[in-house]
Amino acid sequence: MSQEPEFLGLGGRLGAAAGEELVAAGFAMEMADAQLLHDGFGLAGLAHTLALADLGVLPAEDSAALLQALLEMVEIPAQEFPYDPAFGDPWNSRERRIEALAGPRAGWITVGRPRREAARVAMRIAIRRAVLDCHTALVGLGDAYLAGARRHRQVLMADFTYLQPAQPTTFGYLLAGYLQPVLRHLVRLENAYSWVNRSPAGAGGTAGSSLALDRERLANRLGFDGVIPHARDAMWQTDGFVDLLATLANLAVEAGQVAADLEIWASPAYGFVELADEYCRVSALMPQKKNPYALAVIRHAGGSASGAVAELLTVLRTGSARTDHFLSLTGDVNRALVTVAGALRLLSGVISTLRVDRAALARSAADPGLVLGDLADRIVSGGLGDRRAVHQLLGLAARRAAEAGRPLSSADVASVLSELGVELPPELLSGLLDPRVVLSSRTVLGGWARLPELLTASGRELGRRRRVGTALRSALDGAEAALVAEARDRGRSV
Amino acid sequence: MSQEPEFLGLGGRLGAAAGEELVAAGFAMEMADAQLLHDGFGLAGLAHTLALADLGVLPAEDSAALLQALLEMVEIPAQEFPYDPAFGDPWNSRERRIEALAGPRAGWITVGRPRREAARVAMRIAIRRAVLDCHTALVGLGDAYLAGARRHRQVLMADFTYLQPAQPTTFGYLLAGYLQPVLRHLVRLENAYSWVNRSPAGAGGTAGSSLALDRERLANRLGFDGVIPHARDAMWQTDGFVDLLATLANLAVEAGQVAADLEIWASPAYGFVELADEYCRVSALMPQKKNPYALAVIRHAGGSASGAVAELLTVLRTGSARTDHFLSLTGDVNRALVTVAGALRLLSGVISTLRVDRAALARSAADPGLVLGDLADRIVSGGLGDRRAVHQLLGLAARRAAEAGRPLSSADVASVLSELGVELPPELLSGLLDPRVVLSSRTVLGGWARLPELLTASGRELGRRRRVGTALRSALDGAEAALVAEARDRGRSV
Amino acid sequence: MSQEPEFLGLGGRLGAAAGEELVAAGFAMEMADAQLLHDGFGLAGLAHTLALADLGVLPAEDSAALLQALLEMVEIPAQEFPYDPAFGDPWNSRERRIEALAGPRAGWITVGRPRREAARVAMRIAIRRAVLDCHTALVGLGDAYLAGARRHRQVLMADFTYLQPAQPTTFGYLLAGYLQPVLRHLVRLENAYSWVNRSPAGAGGTAGSSLALDRERLANRLGFDGVIPHARDAMWQTDGFVDLLATLANLAVEAGQVAADLEIWASPAYGFVELADEYCRVSALMPQKKNPYALAVIRHAGGSASGAVAELLTVLRTGSARTDHFLSLTGDVNRALVTVAGALRLLSGVISTLRVDRAALARSAADPGLVLGDLADRIVSGGLGDRRAVHQLLGLAARRAAEAGRPLSSADVASVLSELGVELPPELLSGLLDPRVVLSSRTVLGGWARLPELLTASGRELGRRRRVGTALRSALDGAEAALVAEARDRGRSV
Amino acid sequence: MSQEPEFLGLGGRLGAAAGEELVAAGFAMEMADAQLLHDGFGLAGLAHTLALADLGVLPAEDSAALLQALLEMVEIPAQEFPYDPAFGDPWNSRERRIEALAGPRAGWITVGRPRREAARVAMRIAIRRAVLDCHTALVGLGDAYLAGARRHRQVLMADFTYLQPAQPTTFGYLLAGYLQPVLRHLVRLENAYSWVNRSPAGAGGTAGSSLALDRERLANRLGFDGVIPHARDAMWQTDGFVDLLATLANLAVEAGQVAADLEIWASPAYGFVELADEYCRVSALMPQKKNPYALAVIRHAGGSASGAVAELLTVLRTGSARTDHFLSLTGDVNRALVTVAGALRLLSGVISTLRVDRAALARSAADPGLVLGDLADRIVSGGLGDRRAVHQLLGLAARRAAEAGRPLSSADVASVLSELGVELPPELLSGLLDPRVVLSSRTVLGGWARLPELLTASGRELGRRRRVGTALRSALDGAEAALVAEARDRGRSV
Repeated sequence: MSQEPEFLGLGGRLGAAAGEELVAAGFAMEMADAQLLHDGFGLAGLAHTLALADLGVLPAEDSAALLQALLEMVEIPAQEFPYDPAFGDPWNSRERRIEALAGPRAGWITVGRPRREAARVAMRIAIRRAVLDCHTALVGLGDAYLAGARRHRQVLMADFTYLQPAQPTTFGYLLAGYLQPVLRHLVRLENAYSWVNRSPAGAGGTAGSSLALDRERLANRLGFDGVIPHARDAMWQTDGFVDLLATLANLAVEAGQVAADLEIWASPAYGFVELADEYCRVSALMPQKKNPYALAVIRHAGGSASGAVAELLTVLRTGSARTDHFLSLTGDVNRALVTVAGALRLLSGVISTLRVDRAALARSAADPGLVLGDLADRIVSGGLGDRRAVHQLLGLAARRAAEAGRPLSSADVASVLSELGVELPPELLSGLLDPRVVLSSRTVLGGWARLPELLTASGRELGRRRRVGTALRSALDGAEAALVAEARDRGRSV
Repeated sequence: MSQEPEFLGLGGRLGAAAGEELVAAGFAMEMADAQLLHDGFGLAGLAHTLALADLGVLPAEDSAALLQALLEMVEIPAQEFPYDPAFGDPWNSRERRIEALAGPRAGWITVGRPRREAARVAMRIAIRRAVLDCHTALVGLGDAYLAGARRHRQVLMADFTYLQPAQPTTFGYLLAGYLQPVLRHLVRLENAYSWVNRSPAGAGGTAGSSLALDRERLANRLGFDGVIPHARDAMWQTDGFVDLLATLANLAVEAGQVAADLEIWASPAYGFVELADEYCRVSALMPQKKNPYALAVIRHAGGSASGAVAELLTVLRTGSARTDHFLSLTGDVNRALVTVAGALRLLSGVISTLRVDRAALARSAADPGLVLGDLADRIVSGGLGDRRAVHQLLGLAARRAAEAGRPLSSADVASVLSELGVELPPELLSGLLDPRVVLSSRTVLGGWARLPELLTASGRELGRRRRVGTALRSALDGAEAALVAEARDRGRSV
Repeated sequence: MSQEPEFLGLGGRLGAAAGEELVAAGFAMEMADAQLLHDGFGLAGLAHTLALADLGVLPAEDSAALLQALLEMVEIPAQEFPYDPAFGDPWNSRERRIEALAGPRAGWITVGRPRREAARVAMRIAIRRAVLDCHTALVGLGDAYLAGARRHRQVLMADFTYLQPAQPTTFGYLLAGYLQPVLRHLVRLENAYSWVNRSPAGAGGTAGSSLALDRERLANRLGFDGVIPHARDAMWQTDGFVDLLATLANLAVEAGQVAADLEIWASPAYGFVELADEYCRVSALMPQKKNPYALAVIRHAGGSASGAVAELLTVLRTGSARTDHFLSLTGDVNRALVTVAGALRLLSGVISTLRVDRAALARSAADPGLVLGDLADRIVSGGLGDRRAVHQLLGLAARRAAEAGRPLSSADVASVLSELGVELPPELLSGLLDPRVVLSSRTVLGGWARLPELLTASGRELGRRRRVGTALRSALDGAEAALVAEARDRGRSV
Repeated sequence: MSQEPEFLGLGGRLGAAAGEELVAAGFAMEMADAQLLHDGFGLAGLAHTLALADLGVLPAEDSAALLQALLEMVEIPAQEFPYDPAFGDPWNSRERRIEALAGPRAGWITVGRPRREAARVAMRIAIRRAVLDCHTALVGLGDAYLAGARRHRQVLMADFTYLQPAQPTTFGYLLAGYLQPVLRHLVRLENAYSWVNRSPAGAGGTAGSSLALDRERLANRLGFDGVIPHARDAMWQTDGFVDLLATLANLAVEAGQVAADLEIWASPAYGFVELADEYCRVSALMPQKKNPYALAVIRHAGGSASGAVAELLTVLRTGSARTDHFLSLTGDVNRALVTVAGALRLLSGVISTLRVDRAALARSAADPGLVLGDLADRIVSGGLGDRRAVHQLLGLAARRAAEAGRPLSSADVASVLSELGVELPPELLSGLLDPRVVLSSRTVLGGWARLPELLTASGRELGRRRRVGTALRSALDGAEAALVAEARDRGRSV
């Protein structure tokens, strides 16, 4: 046998090494994720070696030597590791290295464990961290919305649909609205995490490992929250990734809606808000242009995450248990997580530093048109007219004012109502002209008048989600450190 | 005022009714969902009227008359209701009808409640039923897999990756693998249901209804499991639909993978399985062709649901709170649910009636190549050779047999190992040649030897999911019947 | 043999008819397209019968009788034809009918021709019409943009990026910009048409029909522009549908961008444009709200067509030549064509009837900030300063004005430049303050000053595209009428 | 003014430089494409400087110095250029460098030209090369299919639908079928190229450059095939990228279908083909497994390109002319081109080196069931029975054989037909039992008997497409070299 390890299988099952098109299109693509998988491969190797030692199949001396070699590899920073697609995927490069360090003992790393199992463990170890980072970024956005909602609770503005003024609201109420789905998305990320952070270790080839490894102990050492029992399911399940990417697309598309709203409100015609300079760039041609560049970046993330969902669903359209599904999956999912987390951090910054022009916002709320719906309701409730007729007349008043090119006035309203024979008690309309009065009447559950209650509840829920994220992260940190410590201990023990 | 109600707003805010291009492209699209929304609109109207009566703003006599009119509309079958896009969306047609039945009192149905709120309630009422139907269909697929896994637990076959034989397994173990994600998807559907089945009723226009409606009682009457507090979130949230469609795509794509597997196994070259005639069609040209048409239909559903996810994510890419998001949403989500549920029922039927050719399957398991991995592990565990060298030699044995165009034999293996100086104890290989022996050694958690345990656990979980579905459905039935009964009672009470 | 035709293959290759899940999920889905395919099936049957007669294999008497029966079926309106999914796809229902009408002679319609061939011909006949309709709708949008560009050529406004004012332009120049991609999309639709309108007729089963049919004559009779030679390609090609759907998504997403622009410009804060009442709807709750509903409908079409592309690409991810690809394809492609054509007609109407507020637009163009880029260029060209320094100072002027909350003035600019030691010749800036002067300096190819030239060229191109569409349509009309006439003639001839 | 150039706009329009979240999420994303854009930015700068000099606004001495500086930058390899996202996008880093090299003269590069124009030119220069590379790869696949079709023209096999044997064909006929869409896709790529390779240079800011640049000469120098006249269209058009990505998805999904076919045929149960070792990898666990890894890689490309289409369509869903559209576009489109070209090269290699097992293929063609369709046609044409009845009986024969678990025989067929009273002339069936006879009867246009004719035509078309690609590439090479030479010449001229 050659001392120099060669392309796996060459001279065995294969008469020729990988052709250059295969290296370029296949192995290079898988190798692009080597850095992401590096730490996970390291931990997976340690845990498997300890499990072999526990079983007694691997003699103590060999296991110590193997652990030492594996620990040496763990300490090589990912970017310095000699990953080389000419020899296959990241695992192949690692196998070559472990053979160079540990000689024939290296063979133990594939006893009872396929390459695929090691790769799946490494993938989950990479992705679980990135999910927690994204969770943290989303908690940060929740904080920004919540603080803004508190700060601007009383800042009057018009709400819009179709960008046409609808009814009075406040900027704080609006921000509280943006916050609500964030609270739901946090739970979705936690569900995705709990799918990701389950252990395929010890599943082995097809119907279970050839060795009676203790899978629960393996899972525990690797920081996983449980074992995926069925071996084929453990190796090939992808359903949680569809879920995760869909959640990322979901929340990023929503962040993009907020960015689109802000783009409009930051335009001079509205002048409701202005972004801090840190989130803008100037035009190189036009010196006056301070462009809210951050909003374009935030909006882009939703498109990018949506593409990732479509890509994965398309990739999965084959028979079951196909290698295609995983060729670029770690990188794709990680990229989506990093992109979306980056956009969330950016949006948090934008929201937290937004300059709000209360006067401009207040002007939008001062339009008497905004209360015609309330007026109609009161007329009907007061038994003064039927709603459809009143609706039509009030609409007519609005039309006449619009056609005359002037704002709607109380007199317009009174005059048109008298056409219907409705003598509007003057206090009915004048009582509505202060948007504050209208808002104070929103006393239903979730209405403006009960915003403090909603903010308290939302703040509590946000706190719960933050604590869950923190606890998950410190559990991971603890487990990973303990595994390395145990391996050091056992590696030294000979 | 005209007695004959006209296009809403005409003569009021509008000087002209909808143009024909708008009716054709807009209202007709919304109207396509009228049948789906019909029942929900009916219930929403009853609940709102009762809430107005509870508040005391609506006089008892008016409320009774209005309830009678609304009950009359509830009794008109959806397909007989005079829905007409010339007057706008389904709500507009309903408003016209209620005016015809109840006169000016009809106006009360928009007091404190925008059209949008009624439409959102109706949408959720339509979709929640369809989610439960899909849950039932998925439970049925779980049943079929579980029964199959039990029936074929001992039916030996090769497992494959890249369609190349890998290691021994059984058909039952494989079906148990298909079952695992089904159990996860059921929980996802329940989560989606619990998002759908929350109440926007009483949210009103923008920052809460103009009336102090009791939103919890409204939710209760409508069979919802709680209130969505924030009014803008209640009106415009779409995150649960992204979730739901992604779950449908997820599970349908997986069902399609199973269909792709079956298509291959049902092909004469494999001959592992045959579909019952009920799931096939013949070629009109070629009399000998019994085509497994059901598999094409099942596979198609995954593409269709994936398109629905992409569509919704694309539609949502605007500013927040846009009408675009909802124009065809009820129909799109319902179509996806119905399509996927249909595919699931079809796959359940196919699996339950599959003719399995045990002999053909057993032949695939008899290839000695399938145990070379185990052999290598045993050689290494026995200290007889290092794994990479052994791997290469065993691979060489396989290559030589393949090049000679004959099956691999034990003699080939022994002879090639002796080249490495490994004198293979004869019982080592012969002990592996019975796939049953190999499978019995899969004693790790989730391995083949522990399949009964896994099936028991899976069966228990499937039972839990079924009971959840059943309970949700009967809660809905009860609430909807109670609301109609209460309305009848109160409508009669004058 | 039963006189009553039954489920195809029952009692032959099949021992049981289709199960109810298969009818519900499979045949019903295919049947949903029966109306669309009806005419094409009719024409395909006539052409095939004529070809059999031409060959002499089908005796004259039989062919006349068969033609009579087929013509009778052609005359049944699609919605009255007894299509029934219990018997399979639309073809099966038609086969049953032709047997009822023509007895055993009916068998000739599958001699040398599989069901699949008939279905593919019918699909192309359905889709080609819909492509031409969409082409017509897009020509109409081109007309609307062109007329608007001419009408508003001199109507000054600011151009925006990031919704921040950039430089002066005119509303006409902008509309001319919207027009440019329309001209390219028209060519794309023509390319898609020329793919669709090629003939699979006579391709037969797998490697060519069993009969020596004259495929060119068949193509000619059916109005196709040529034959797809390779039989498998003729039956299974889908590449043109991907192309077509991508083009629809492409142009619909663009139409949606225009709708998004208009939504902003129609909002009161901008007040640049107002939609005609025919394209609006009022709020049922809020009488003052005239909502530009058409824009939501237009924007929605882009999402819908994007979903159709994603769906088809996902559906195609199998092996080659799979029935799945076509199960709902006719309906899906037709729906995309009809939806997009509807949105295009709506946008044409909106553009043609838009009320443009020239004063509001002019105000946006009057901001001196819009010419700072030009000013910087002139300063540098005049050797009065280096561009980056000037850029910075002019930006500073803009910042100071913004921070002071007042518009930028000429004095601000002069004063800040003098800090750099640039004594700005007063005519340099004042010469730029009239946006008309700035625009007149845009004399490069395609610049504003050469808009008339561009509009002439665009108008010519639009005329060419319209003539292509018209010619294609009349060729179709002619061919289809001629085929029916020939069949009538030959059906009578016995 | 600071000598050290800083963050653009800082101290001018901006009071603060980009925040770290913006650098991380925005500029870093744009910077990821710096290497791709490097050469194009270099050429764009040279051409713009020459155009300024032509106009006479830029003094000869300055232009020479500026050209020298720009040429120096052109010679720095992309990976050594000091690109740094802290200063913005790639253009900002280049601007800093040119200022360091050329001092205040550097300002000329933004006179009459926004950053955006430079970026759009650079993007098109990058992508046009990648399109031609992909075209070359696709021509290569066409060559492989064509050579295979010629080599295996007579290699009998069954054709399949639903993976059930249908009718006889040959492996060469099948490969000729795969070739047909390749010929169409080549034209699509050429159309995409001709969209990409048009010039936005000289378009300037919003309604044309502030200077009267000669845009045709600019286009010519940059190797573009014409000018995009309208300035806004020139800056913001994306329609060709949707087209291009859709074409890539289209052809890659098709390549994936071929890979799926090959995966099945390479599985031992079929044994039709075997991949050369260069395109395979072994299992690390299972020594016997030679996995056709290349097929997974090829299939993956279709999913990846489909994701890119979905992503772009989603990203474009905003208002018009948004920066979001372009943030990652160069990299996204390039990645799709490179991925798909890599997959095409891999598939070409696989096809060219495929080991074909003629005996196994021939066995599949020997099934008498494959000719029952032809038999039915002959019986009907011979007036011996009606087709539906014959179809049913032949199907019954097939069913009986299948149920008895044995192959269909001629005797089965004769016996069942006699039940219908059809006395089959023995030569009718026996004449069909040689698949060669059946194939020779496929004489329709495009049928098997006319394959040589089709291959000649296909070969000619492939030659045309190859020549177009070659001509486009050498035109580019010539133009780019000429521009650098002219710049050298003019840079030296002072």
